[in-house]
Amino acid sequence: MTEYLDFAKEIALYAGKVMMEYYNKKIDLNYKNDKTVVTLVDKKINSYLIEKVKEKYPTHAVNGEEENYNQDSPYVWVCDPLDGTGMYVDHIPVFVFSLALVYDGEPIVGVIYNANEDKLYSAIKGQGAYCNSAKIHVNNKKLGDLGYKTNIEIFNNELIDEIEILKELKKLSKISSIGSVARSCMAIATGDFSCDIFPGTIHANCDIAASYLIVTEAGGKVTNIYGDNQRYDVDIKGAIITNGISHNQILGIISKYIKKGEIK
Amino acid sequence: MTEYLDFAKEIALYAGKVMMEYYNKKIDLNYKNDKTVVTLVDKKINSYLIEKVKEKYPTHAVNGEEENYNQDSPYVWVCDPLDGTGMYVDHIPVFVFSLALVYDGEPIVGVIYNANEDKLYSAIKGQGAYCNSAKIHVNNKKLGDLGYKTNIEIFNNELIDEIEILKELKKLSKISSIGSVARSCMAIATGDFSCDIFPGTIHANCDIAASYLIVTEAGGKVTNIYGDNQRYDVDIKGAIITNGISHNQILGIISKYIKKGEIK
Repeated sequence: MTEYLDFAKEIALYAGKVMMEYYNKKIDLNYKNDKTVVTLVDKKINSYLIEKVKEKYPTHAVNGEEENYNQDSPYVWVCDPLDGTGMYVDHIPVFVFSLALVYDGEPIVGVIYNANEDKLYSAIKGQGAYCNSAKIHVNNKKLGDLGYKTNIEIFNNELIDEIEILKELKKLSKISSIGSVARSCMAIATGDFSCDIFPGTIHANCDIAASYLIVTEAGGKVTNIYGDNQRYDVDIKGAIITNGISHNQILGIISKYIKKGEIK
Repeated sequence: MTEYLDFAKEIALYAGKVMMEYYNKKIDLNYKNDKTVVTLVDKKINSYLIEKVKEKYPTHAVNGEEENYNQDSPYVWVCDPLDGTGMYVDHIPVFVFSLALVYDGEPIVGVIYNANEDKLYSAIKGQGAYCNSAKIHVNNKKLGDLGYKTNIEIFNNELIDEIEILKELKKLSKISSIGSVARSCMAIATGDFSCDIFPGTIHANCDIAASYLIVTEAGGKVTNIYGDNQRYDVDIKGAIITNGISHNQILGIISKYIKKGEIK
Protein backbone atom coordinates (compact mmCIF):
# COMPACT_ATOMS: atom_id res chain seq x y z
CA MET A 1 0.00 0.00 0.00
CA THR A 2 2.84 2.38 0.87
CA GLU A 3 4.28 1.66 -2.55
CA TYR A 4 0.99 2.70 -4.17
CA LEU A 5 0.94 5.85 -2.07
CA ASP A 6 4.51 6.73 -3.06
CA PHE A 7 3.58 6.19 -6.68
CA ALA A 8 0.51 8.46 -6.32
CA LYS A 9 2.61 11.15 -4.63
CA GLU A 10 5.15 11.08 -7.45
CA ILE A 11 2.37 11.69 -9.99
CA ALA A 12 0.96 14.46 -7.77
CA LEU A 13 4.26 16.31 -7.61
CA TYR A 14 4.60 16.14 -11.39
CA ALA A 15 1.00 17.41 -11.75
CA GLY A 16 1.75 20.27 -9.38
CA LYS A 17 4.73 21.35 -11.44
CA VAL A 18 2.65 21.40 -14.64
CA MET A 19 -0.22 23.32 -12.99
CA MET A 20 1.98 25.97 -11.49
CA GLU A 21 3.98 26.43 -14.69
CA TYR A 22 0.86 27.28 -16.70
CA TYR A 23 -0.84 29.13 -13.85
CA ASN A 24 2.06 31.56 -13.69
CA LYS A 25 2.61 31.66 -17.43
CA LYS A 26 -1.00 32.66 -17.92
CA ILE A 27 -0.52 35.58 -15.57
CA ASP A 28 2.57 36.81 -17.37
CA LEU A 29 1.25 36.40 -20.86
CA ASN A 30 -2.26 37.50 -19.96
CA TYR A 31 -3.31 34.33 -21.72
CA LYS A 32 -6.98 34.55 -22.59
CA ASN A 33 -7.80 31.28 -24.27
CA ASP A 34 -8.70 29.66 -20.97
CA LYS A 35 -10.25 26.46 -22.21
CA THR A 36 -7.16 25.64 -24.27
CA VAL A 37 -4.88 26.07 -21.28
CA VAL A 38 -6.99 23.89 -19.01
CA THR A 39 -7.27 21.17 -21.63
CA LEU A 40 -3.52 21.29 -22.14
CA VAL A 41 -2.80 20.96 -18.41
CA ASP A 42 -5.44 18.23 -17.97
CA LYS A 43 -4.12 16.22 -20.91
CA LYS A 44 -0.48 16.55 -19.96
CA ILE A 45 -1.14 15.23 -16.44
CA ASN A 46 -3.55 12.54 -17.60
CA SER A 47 -1.07 11.24 -20.21
CA TYR A 48 1.77 11.19 -17.70
CA LEU A 49 -0.37 9.11 -15.31
CA ILE A 50 -1.23 6.58 -18.01
CA GLU A 51 2.39 6.35 -19.12
CA LYS A 52 3.56 5.68 -15.54
CA VAL A 53 0.78 3.16 -14.80
CA LYS A 54 1.69 1.29 -18.00
CA GLU A 55 5.31 1.17 -16.83
CA LYS A 56 4.73 0.17 -13.23
CA TYR A 57 1.28 -1.46 -12.98
CA PRO A 58 0.44 -2.53 -16.54
CA THR A 59 -2.51 -4.67 -15.38
CA HIS A 60 -4.18 -1.73 -13.58
CA ALA A 61 -6.68 0.58 -15.26
CA VAL A 62 -6.83 4.38 -15.43
CA ASN A 63 -10.05 6.39 -15.30
CA GLY A 64 -9.02 9.96 -16.04
CA GLU A 65 -11.11 12.96 -16.92
CA GLU A 66 -9.41 13.25 -20.30
CA GLU A 67 -8.35 9.72 -21.17
CA ASN A 68 -8.78 6.12 -19.96
CA TYR A 69 -6.58 3.02 -20.12
CA ASN A 70 -7.22 -0.71 -19.79
CA GLN A 71 -10.78 -0.70 -18.42
CA ASP A 72 -10.80 -4.39 -17.35
CA SER A 73 -9.09 -4.41 -13.98
CA PRO A 74 -10.38 -4.37 -10.39
CA TYR A 75 -7.57 -1.84 -9.69
CA VAL A 76 -8.45 1.55 -11.18
CA TRP A 77 -6.49 4.78 -10.82
CA VAL A 78 -9.25 7.40 -10.71
CA CYS A 79 -7.93 10.87 -11.50
CA ASP A 80 -9.12 14.45 -11.79
CA PRO A 81 -5.98 16.13 -13.13
CA LEU A 82 -7.15 19.66 -12.23
CA ASP A 83 -10.10 20.20 -9.91
CA GLY A 84 -11.15 23.85 -9.70
CA THR A 85 -10.55 24.77 -13.33
CA GLY A 86 -12.77 27.88 -13.10
CA MET A 87 -10.66 29.30 -10.28
CA TYR A 88 -7.46 28.21 -12.01
CA VAL A 89 -8.24 30.22 -15.14
CA ASP A 90 -9.29 33.18 -12.98
CA HIS A 91 -6.01 33.09 -11.04
CA ILE A 92 -7.57 32.33 -7.66
CA PRO A 93 -5.30 29.75 -5.98
CA VAL A 94 -8.03 27.23 -5.15
CA PHE A 95 -7.31 24.23 -7.35
CA VAL A 96 -5.85 20.76 -6.77
CA PHE A 97 -4.78 17.49 -8.34
CA SER A 98 -6.77 14.44 -7.22
CA LEU A 99 -5.86 10.73 -7.58
CA ALA A 100 -7.22 7.58 -5.94
CA LEU A 101 -6.48 3.91 -6.36
CA VAL A 102 -9.86 2.23 -6.35
CA TYR A 103 -10.11 -1.54 -5.74
CA ASP A 104 -13.43 -3.16 -6.53
CA GLY A 105 -15.21 0.20 -6.32
CA GLU A 106 -13.62 1.38 -3.09
CA PRO A 107 -10.72 3.86 -2.74
CA ILE A 108 -7.77 2.30 -0.88
CA VAL A 109 -5.16 5.01 -1.52
CA GLY A 110 -5.87 8.71 -2.09
CA VAL A 111 -3.75 11.76 -2.78
CA ILE A 112 -4.77 15.39 -3.30
CA TYR A 113 -2.15 18.01 -4.04
CA ASN A 114 -2.59 21.74 -3.49
CA ALA A 115 0.48 22.78 -5.45
CA ASN A 116 0.05 26.50 -4.82
CA GLU A 117 0.61 26.02 -1.09
CA ASP A 118 2.68 22.82 -1.43
CA LYS A 119 0.25 20.82 0.68
CA LEU A 120 -0.03 17.14 -0.09
CA TYR A 121 -3.03 15.43 1.49
CA SER A 122 -3.02 11.65 1.59
CA ALA A 123 -4.60 8.55 3.05
CA ILE A 124 -4.32 4.77 2.97
CA LYS A 125 -7.48 2.88 3.94
CA GLY A 126 -7.48 2.23 7.67
CA GLN A 127 -4.34 4.26 8.38
CA GLY A 128 -5.62 7.83 8.95
CA ALA A 129 -5.29 10.98 6.87
CA TYR A 130 -2.34 13.33 6.52
CA CYS A 131 -1.46 16.80 5.26
CA ASN A 132 2.24 16.53 4.40
CA SER A 133 3.49 14.64 7.47
CA ALA A 134 0.88 15.93 9.94
CA LYS A 135 -2.11 13.80 10.89
CA ILE A 136 -5.39 15.62 10.18
CA HIS A 137 -8.90 15.33 11.61
CA VAL A 138 -12.32 16.83 10.97
CA ASN A 139 -13.78 19.31 13.47
CA ASN A 140 -16.66 18.53 15.83
CA LYS A 141 -18.96 21.46 15.03
CA LYS A 142 -22.63 20.82 14.46
CA LEU A 143 -24.92 22.69 12.08
CA GLY A 144 -25.82 25.98 13.75
CA ASP A 145 -22.54 26.28 15.66
CA LEU A 146 -20.43 29.41 15.25
CA GLY A 147 -17.92 28.86 12.45
CA TYR A 148 -19.75 25.91 10.84
CA LYS A 149 -18.97 26.46 7.16
CA THR A 150 -20.67 24.84 4.18
CA ASN A 151 -19.24 25.07 0.70
CA ILE A 152 -21.62 24.63 -2.21
CA GLU A 153 -21.30 24.74 -5.97
CA ILE A 154 -23.78 27.12 -7.58
CA PHE A 155 -24.62 26.28 -11.17
CA ASN A 156 -27.41 24.86 -13.29
CA ASN A 157 -27.05 21.29 -12.08
CA GLU A 158 -29.20 18.26 -12.84
CA LEU A 159 -29.82 16.97 -9.35
CA ILE A 160 -30.81 19.51 -6.71
CA ASP A 161 -32.15 23.04 -6.35
CA GLU A 162 -29.13 24.42 -4.55
CA ILE A 163 -30.61 27.92 -4.29
CA GLU A 164 -33.43 26.70 -2.04
CA ILE A 165 -30.91 24.70 -0.04
CA LEU A 166 -28.82 27.86 0.39
CA LYS A 167 -31.83 29.76 1.65
CA GLU A 168 -32.25 27.27 4.52
CA LEU A 169 -28.59 26.67 5.21
CA LYS A 170 -27.46 30.29 5.44
CA LYS A 171 -29.45 30.59 8.68
CA LEU A 172 -27.44 27.72 10.18
CA SER A 173 -24.04 27.93 8.53
CA LYS A 174 -21.51 30.24 6.95
CA ILE A 175 -21.57 29.75 3.19
CA SER A 176 -18.82 29.77 0.60
CA SER A 177 -18.49 28.73 -3.01
CA ILE A 178 -14.79 28.38 -3.73
CA GLY A 179 -15.10 26.42 -6.96
CA SER A 180 -13.13 23.27 -6.10
CA VAL A 181 -14.92 20.42 -4.35
CA ALA A 182 -11.67 18.56 -3.66
CA ARG A 183 -10.03 21.64 -2.09
CA SER A 184 -13.14 22.17 -0.01
CA CYS A 185 -13.06 18.50 1.09
CA MET A 186 -9.48 18.96 2.25
CA ALA A 187 -10.67 21.94 4.33
CA ILE A 188 -13.18 19.53 5.91
CA ALA A 189 -10.46 16.92 6.51
CA THR A 190 -8.29 19.50 8.33
CA GLY A 191 -11.18 20.72 10.48
CA ASP A 192 -11.60 24.11 8.78
CA PHE A 193 -14.86 23.62 6.85
CA SER A 194 -17.64 21.35 8.13
CA CYS A 195 -19.68 20.47 5.02
CA ASP A 196 -19.58 20.44 1.23
CA ILE A 197 -22.61 20.00 -0.99
CA PHE A 198 -21.57 18.82 -4.43
CA PRO A 199 -24.44 18.48 -6.87
CA GLY A 200 -21.94 17.41 -9.49
CA THR A 201 -23.29 15.82 -12.54
CA ILE A 202 -24.64 12.29 -12.47
CA HIS A 203 -21.15 11.19 -13.52
CA ALA A 204 -18.00 12.69 -11.98
CA ASN A 205 -16.74 9.91 -9.73
CA CYS A 206 -13.27 11.29 -10.59
CA ASP A 207 -14.02 14.37 -8.50
CA ILE A 208 -14.74 12.54 -5.26
CA ALA A 209 -12.81 9.24 -5.04
CA ALA A 210 -9.65 10.60 -3.37
CA SER A 211 -11.61 13.09 -1.25
CA TYR A 212 -13.83 10.26 -0.02
CA LEU A 213 -10.88 8.34 1.41
CA ILE A 214 -9.06 11.31 2.90
CA VAL A 215 -12.19 12.77 4.53
CA THR A 216 -13.32 9.37 5.81
CA GLU A 217 -9.88 8.59 7.25
CA ALA A 218 -9.94 12.05 8.89
CA GLY A 219 -13.15 11.07 10.68
CA GLY A 220 -15.75 12.52 8.29
CA LYS A 221 -18.57 11.08 6.21
CA VAL A 222 -19.29 10.96 2.46
CA THR A 223 -22.51 9.81 0.79
CA ASN A 224 -24.45 10.61 -2.35
CA ILE A 225 -27.32 13.13 -2.12
CA TYR A 226 -29.70 10.35 -1.02
CA GLY A 227 -27.47 9.32 1.88
CA ASP A 228 -26.22 6.13 0.22
CA ASN A 229 -22.61 4.98 0.18
CA GLN A 230 -20.88 5.35 -3.16
CA ARG A 231 -18.85 3.09 -5.40
CA TYR A 232 -16.19 4.90 -7.37
CA ASP A 233 -16.17 2.65 -10.41
CA VAL A 234 -19.67 3.69 -11.47
CA ASP A 235 -21.54 7.00 -11.75
CA ILE A 236 -22.13 8.79 -8.49
CA LYS A 237 -25.18 10.91 -7.73
CA GLY A 238 -23.68 14.05 -6.30
CA ALA A 239 -21.88 13.99 -2.98
CA ILE A 240 -22.46 15.25 0.54
CA ILE A 241 -19.24 15.50 2.47
CA THR A 242 -19.31 16.42 6.17
CA ASN A 243 -17.44 16.12 9.43
CA GLY A 244 -20.02 13.39 10.17
CA ILE A 245 -21.90 15.21 12.90
CA SER A 246 -24.87 16.85 11.16
CA HIS A 247 -24.79 14.62 8.09
CA ASN A 248 -28.37 13.37 8.47
CA GLN A 249 -29.72 16.85 9.15
CA ILE A 250 -28.06 18.10 5.94
CA LEU A 251 -29.47 15.13 4.01
CA GLY A 252 -32.91 16.02 5.40
CA ILE A 253 -32.69 19.55 4.02
CA ILE A 254 -31.40 18.34 0.67
CA SER A 255 -34.11 15.69 0.32
CA LYS A 256 -36.70 18.47 0.05
CA TYR A 257 -35.01 19.94 -3.00
CA ILE A 258 -34.09 16.97 -5.15
CA LYS A 259 -35.34 17.75 -8.60
CA LYS A 260 -38.46 16.00 -9.85
CA GLY A 261 -37.87 13.31 -12.41
CA GLU A 262 -34.59 12.41 -10.75
CA ILE A 263 -34.94 8.74 -9.79
CA LYS A 264 -32.83 7.10 -7.16
CA MET B 1 1.42 61.22 -4.86
CA THR B 2 4.22 58.73 -5.53
CA GLU B 3 5.44 59.39 -2.00
CA TYR B 4 2.00 58.51 -0.61
CA LEU B 5 2.00 55.35 -2.74
CA ASP B 6 5.44 54.32 -1.50
CA PHE B 7 4.27 54.90 2.06
CA ALA B 8 1.15 52.76 1.47
CA LYS B 9 3.26 49.99 -0.07
CA GLU B 10 5.59 49.95 2.92
CA ILE B 11 2.60 49.46 5.24
CA ALA B 12 1.25 46.75 2.92
CA LEU B 13 4.48 44.75 3.01
CA TYR B 14 4.56 44.92 6.80
CA ALA B 15 0.90 43.80 6.90
CA GLY B 16 1.69 40.91 4.56
CA LYS B 17 4.46 39.71 6.85
CA VAL B 18 2.18 39.75 9.90
CA MET B 19 -0.64 37.95 8.04
CA MET B 20 1.55 35.19 6.70
CA GLU B 21 3.30 34.67 10.03
CA TYR B 22 0.01 33.96 11.81
CA TYR B 23 -1.56 32.17 8.85
CA ASN B 24 1.24 29.63 8.89
CA LYS B 25 1.51 29.51 12.66
CA LYS B 26 -2.17 28.67 12.89
CA ILE B 27 -1.65 25.74 10.55
CA ASP B 28 1.27 24.37 12.56
CA LEU B 29 -0.29 24.80 15.96
CA ASN B 30 -3.78 23.88 14.78
CA TYR B 31 -4.82 27.11 16.48
CA LYS B 32 -8.53 27.03 17.13
CA ASN B 33 -9.33 30.34 18.75
CA ASP B 34 -9.92 31.98 15.40
CA LYS B 35 -11.42 35.25 16.52
CA THR B 36 -8.46 35.94 18.79
CA VAL B 37 -6.00 35.41 15.97
CA VAL B 38 -7.86 37.67 13.56
CA THR B 39 -8.20 40.39 16.16
CA LEU B 40 -4.50 40.11 16.94
CA VAL B 41 -3.51 40.42 13.27
CA ASP B 42 -5.99 43.26 12.65
CA LYS B 43 -4.80 45.22 15.69
CA LYS B 44 -1.12 44.72 14.98
CA ILE B 45 -1.48 46.07 11.43
CA ASN B 46 -3.86 48.86 12.44
CA SER B 47 -1.50 50.07 15.21
CA TYR B 48 1.50 50.00 12.89
CA LEU B 49 -0.39 52.15 10.37
CA ILE B 50 -1.33 54.71 13.02
CA GLU B 51 2.22 54.80 14.38
CA LYS B 52 3.65 55.40 10.88
CA VAL B 53 1.04 58.05 9.96
CA LYS B 54 1.79 59.88 13.22
CA GLU B 55 5.49 59.84 12.32
CA LYS B 56 5.21 60.87 8.68
CA TYR B 57 1.85 62.64 8.20
CA PRO B 58 0.78 63.75 11.67
CA THR B 59 -1.98 66.02 10.31
CA HIS B 60 -3.63 63.14 8.41
CA ALA B 61 -6.35 60.93 9.89
CA VAL B 62 -6.65 57.15 10.04
CA ASN B 63 -9.93 55.26 9.69
CA GLY B 64 -9.09 51.65 10.49
CA GLU B 65 -11.35 48.74 11.23
CA GLU B 66 -9.89 48.39 14.73
CA GLU B 67 -8.77 51.88 15.67
CA ASN B 68 -8.97 55.49 14.45
CA TYR B 69 -6.67 58.49 14.76
CA ASN B 70 -7.14 62.26 14.41
CA GLN B 71 -10.58 62.39 12.78
CA ASP B 72 -10.39 66.08 11.73
CA SER B 73 -8.44 66.03 8.46
CA PRO B 74 -9.48 66.04 4.80
CA TYR B 75 -6.73 63.39 4.30
CA VAL B 76 -7.85 60.04 5.70
CA TRP B 77 -5.99 56.72 5.48
CA VAL B 78 -8.85 54.21 5.16
CA CYS B 79 -7.73 50.70 6.03
CA ASP B 80 -9.07 47.17 6.23
CA PRO B 81 -6.12 45.36 7.80
CA LEU B 82 -7.36 41.88 6.80
CA ASP B 83 -10.16 41.45 4.27
CA GLY B 84 -11.35 37.85 3.97
CA THR B 85 -11.05 36.92 7.65
CA GLY B 86 -13.36 33.91 7.26
CA MET B 87 -11.11 32.40 4.60
CA TYR B 88 -8.00 33.35 6.55
CA VAL B 89 -9.08 31.38 9.61
CA ASP B 90 -10.11 28.48 7.37
CA HIS B 91 -6.68 28.42 5.67
CA ILE B 92 -7.97 29.24 2.20
CA PRO B 93 -5.50 31.72 0.67
CA VAL B 94 -8.05 34.35 -0.32
CA PHE B 95 -7.35 37.32 1.93
CA VAL B 96 -5.73 40.73 1.44
CA PHE B 97 -4.64 43.94 3.09
CA SER B 98 -6.41 47.08 1.84
CA LEU B 99 -5.39 50.73 2.27
CA ALA B 100 -6.49 53.94 0.55
CA LEU B 101 -5.64 57.58 1.02
CA VAL B 102 -8.95 59.42 0.77
CA TYR B 103 -8.99 63.18 0.17
CA ASP B 104 -12.29 64.94 0.73
CA GLY B 105 -14.19 61.65 0.37
CA GLU B 106 -12.42 60.41 -2.74
CA PRO B 107 -9.62 57.82 -2.88
CA ILE B 108 -6.48 59.24 -4.52
CA VAL B 109 -4.04 56.42 -3.71
CA GLY B 110 -4.94 52.76 -3.21
CA VAL B 111 -2.99 49.62 -2.37
CA ILE B 112 -4.18 46.05 -1.94
CA TYR B 113 -1.73 43.32 -1.03
CA ASN B 114 -2.29 39.61 -1.61
CA ALA B 115 0.58 38.44 0.56
CA ASN B 116 0.06 34.75 -0.10
CA GLU B 117 0.90 35.22 -3.78
CA ASP B 118 3.07 38.31 -3.27
CA LYS B 119 0.88 40.42 -5.56
CA LEU B 120 0.69 44.10 -4.79
CA TYR B 121 -2.12 45.92 -6.58
CA SER B 122 -1.95 49.70 -6.67
CA ALA B 123 -3.30 52.86 -8.24
CA ILE B 124 -2.86 56.61 -8.13
CA LYS B 125 -5.87 58.63 -9.30
CA GLY B 126 -5.58 59.30 -13.04
CA GLN B 127 -2.50 57.13 -13.52
CA GLY B 128 -3.86 53.63 -14.20
CA ALA B 129 -3.82 50.46 -12.10
CA TYR B 130 -1.00 47.99 -11.56
CA CYS B 131 -0.35 44.49 -10.25
CA ASN B 132 3.27 44.61 -9.12
CA SER B 133 4.82 46.44 -12.09
CA ALA B 134 2.35 45.27 -14.76
CA LYS B 135 -0.49 47.50 -15.90
CA ILE B 136 -3.88 45.81 -15.41
CA HIS B 137 -7.25 46.24 -17.09
CA VAL B 138 -10.78 44.90 -16.69
CA ASN B 139 -12.15 42.47 -19.28
CA ASN B 140 -14.82 43.36 -21.83
CA LYS B 141 -17.29 40.54 -21.21
CA LYS B 142 -20.96 41.32 -20.92
CA LEU B 143 -23.49 39.56 -18.68
CA GLY B 144 -24.41 36.29 -20.42
CA ASP B 145 -21.01 35.86 -22.10
CA LEU B 146 -19.06 32.66 -21.56
CA GLY B 147 -16.73 33.09 -18.59
CA TYR B 148 -18.55 36.11 -17.11
CA LYS B 149 -18.06 35.55 -13.38
CA THR B 150 -19.90 37.23 -10.52
CA ASN B 151 -18.72 36.95 -6.94
CA ILE B 152 -21.27 37.48 -4.21
CA GLU B 153 -21.22 37.36 -0.44
CA ILE B 154 -23.91 35.10 1.00
CA PHE B 155 -24.97 35.98 4.52
CA ASN B 156 -27.85 37.50 6.44
CA ASN B 157 -27.27 41.06 5.27
CA GLU B 158 -29.33 44.19 5.88
CA LEU B 159 -29.66 45.49 2.35
CA ILE B 160 -30.55 42.99 -0.35
CA ASP B 161 -32.00 39.52 -0.81
CA GLU B 162 -28.92 38.00 -2.38
CA ILE B 163 -30.53 34.57 -2.76
CA GLU B 164 -33.14 35.90 -5.21
CA ILE B 165 -30.39 37.80 -7.03
CA LEU B 166 -28.40 34.56 -7.31
CA LYS B 167 -31.40 32.79 -8.79
CA GLU B 168 -31.52 35.28 -11.67
CA LEU B 169 -27.80 35.73 -12.09
CA LYS B 170 -26.80 32.07 -12.26
CA LYS B 171 -28.57 31.86 -15.64
CA LEU B 172 -26.34 34.63 -16.99
CA SER B 173 -23.07 34.28 -15.09
CA LYS B 174 -20.77 31.87 -13.35
CA ILE B 175 -21.06 32.38 -9.59
CA SER B 176 -18.50 32.23 -6.83
CA SER B 177 -18.39 33.27 -3.21
CA ILE B 178 -14.74 33.46 -2.23
CA GLY B 179 -15.20 35.44 0.98
CA SER B 180 -13.04 38.51 0.26
CA VAL B 181 -14.58 41.43 -1.60
CA ALA B 182 -11.22 43.15 -2.06
CA ARG B 183 -9.60 40.01 -3.53
CA SER B 184 -12.58 39.60 -5.82
CA CYS B 185 -12.28 43.26 -6.90
CA MET B 186 -8.64 42.65 -7.80
CA ALA B 187 -9.80 39.73 -9.96
CA ILE B 188 -12.09 42.23 -11.71
CA ALA B 189 -9.24 44.72 -12.12
CA THR B 190 -7.05 42.07 -13.78
CA GLY B 191 -9.84 40.96 -16.13
CA ASP B 192 -10.50 37.60 -14.46
CA PHE B 193 -13.87 38.21 -12.77
CA SER B 194 -16.47 40.60 -14.23
CA CYS B 195 -18.68 41.55 -11.29
CA ASP B 196 -18.84 41.58 -7.50
CA ILE B 197 -21.99 42.16 -5.48
CA PHE B 198 -21.16 43.30 -1.97
CA PRO B 199 -24.16 43.75 0.27
CA GLY B 200 -21.81 44.72 3.05
CA THR B 201 -23.32 46.38 6.00
CA ILE B 202 -24.51 49.97 5.81
CA HIS B 203 -21.08 50.93 7.14
CA ALA B 204 -17.89 49.28 5.82
CA ASN B 205 -16.34 52.01 3.66
CA CYS B 206 -13.01 50.49 4.77
CA ASP B 207 -13.73 47.44 2.63
CA ILE B 208 -14.16 49.29 -0.65
CA ALA B 209 -12.08 52.51 -0.75
CA ALA B 210 -8.86 51.02 -2.19
CA SER B 211 -10.77 48.60 -4.43
CA TYR B 212 -12.78 51.52 -5.83
CA LEU B 213 -9.67 53.32 -7.04
CA ILE B 214 -7.86 50.28 -8.42
CA VAL B 215 -10.94 48.95 -10.24
CA THR B 216 -11.84 52.38 -11.60
CA GLU B 217 -8.27 53.02 -12.79
CA ALA B 218 -8.35 49.57 -14.45
CA GLY B 219 -11.41 50.69 -16.45
CA GLY B 220 -14.21 49.34 -14.25
CA LYS B 221 -17.11 50.89 -12.36
CA VAL B 222 -18.08 51.04 -8.67
CA THR B 223 -21.35 52.33 -7.23
CA ASN B 224 -23.56 51.61 -4.24
CA ILE B 225 -26.50 49.22 -4.67
CA TYR B 226 -28.69 52.11 -5.94
CA GLY B 227 -26.21 53.05 -8.68
CA ASP B 228 -24.94 56.17 -6.92
CA ASN B 229 -21.30 57.18 -6.62
CA GLN B 230 -19.83 56.75 -3.17
CA ARG B 231 -17.88 58.93 -0.78
CA TYR B 232 -15.44 57.00 1.38
CA ASP B 233 -15.55 59.26 4.42
CA VAL B 234 -19.14 58.34 5.21
CA ASP B 235 -21.14 55.12 5.37
CA ILE B 236 -21.60 53.35 2.05
CA LYS B 237 -24.66 51.37 1.10
CA GLY B 238 -23.20 48.14 -0.24
CA ALA B 239 -21.16 48.14 -3.44
CA ILE B 240 -21.55 46.90 -6.98
CA ILE B 241 -18.21 46.50 -8.69
CA THR B 242 -18.07 45.58 -12.39
CA ASN B 243 -15.96 45.81 -15.50
CA GLY B 244 -18.35 48.65 -16.42
CA ILE B 245 -20.12 46.89 -19.28
CA SER B 246 -23.26 45.38 -17.75
CA HIS B 247 -23.31 47.60 -14.68
CA ASN B 248 -26.80 49.00 -15.30
CA GLN B 249 -28.23 45.58 -16.08
CA ILE B 250 -26.85 44.27 -12.78
CA LEU B 251 -28.29 47.29 -10.94
CA GLY B 252 -31.65 46.56 -12.56
CA ILE B 253 -31.67 43.02 -11.20
CA ILE B 254 -30.57 44.18 -7.75
CA SER B 255 -33.18 46.94 -7.58
CA LYS B 256 -35.89 44.27 -7.51
CA TYR B 257 -34.49 42.72 -4.35
CA ILE B 258 -33.60 45.66 -2.14
CA LYS B 259 -35.13 44.95 1.23
CA LYS B 260 -38.24 46.84 2.23
CA GLY B 261 -37.74 49.53 4.80
CA GLU B 262 -34.29 50.27 3.42
CA ILE B 263 -34.41 53.92 2.38
CA LYS B 264 -32.01 55.44 -0.08
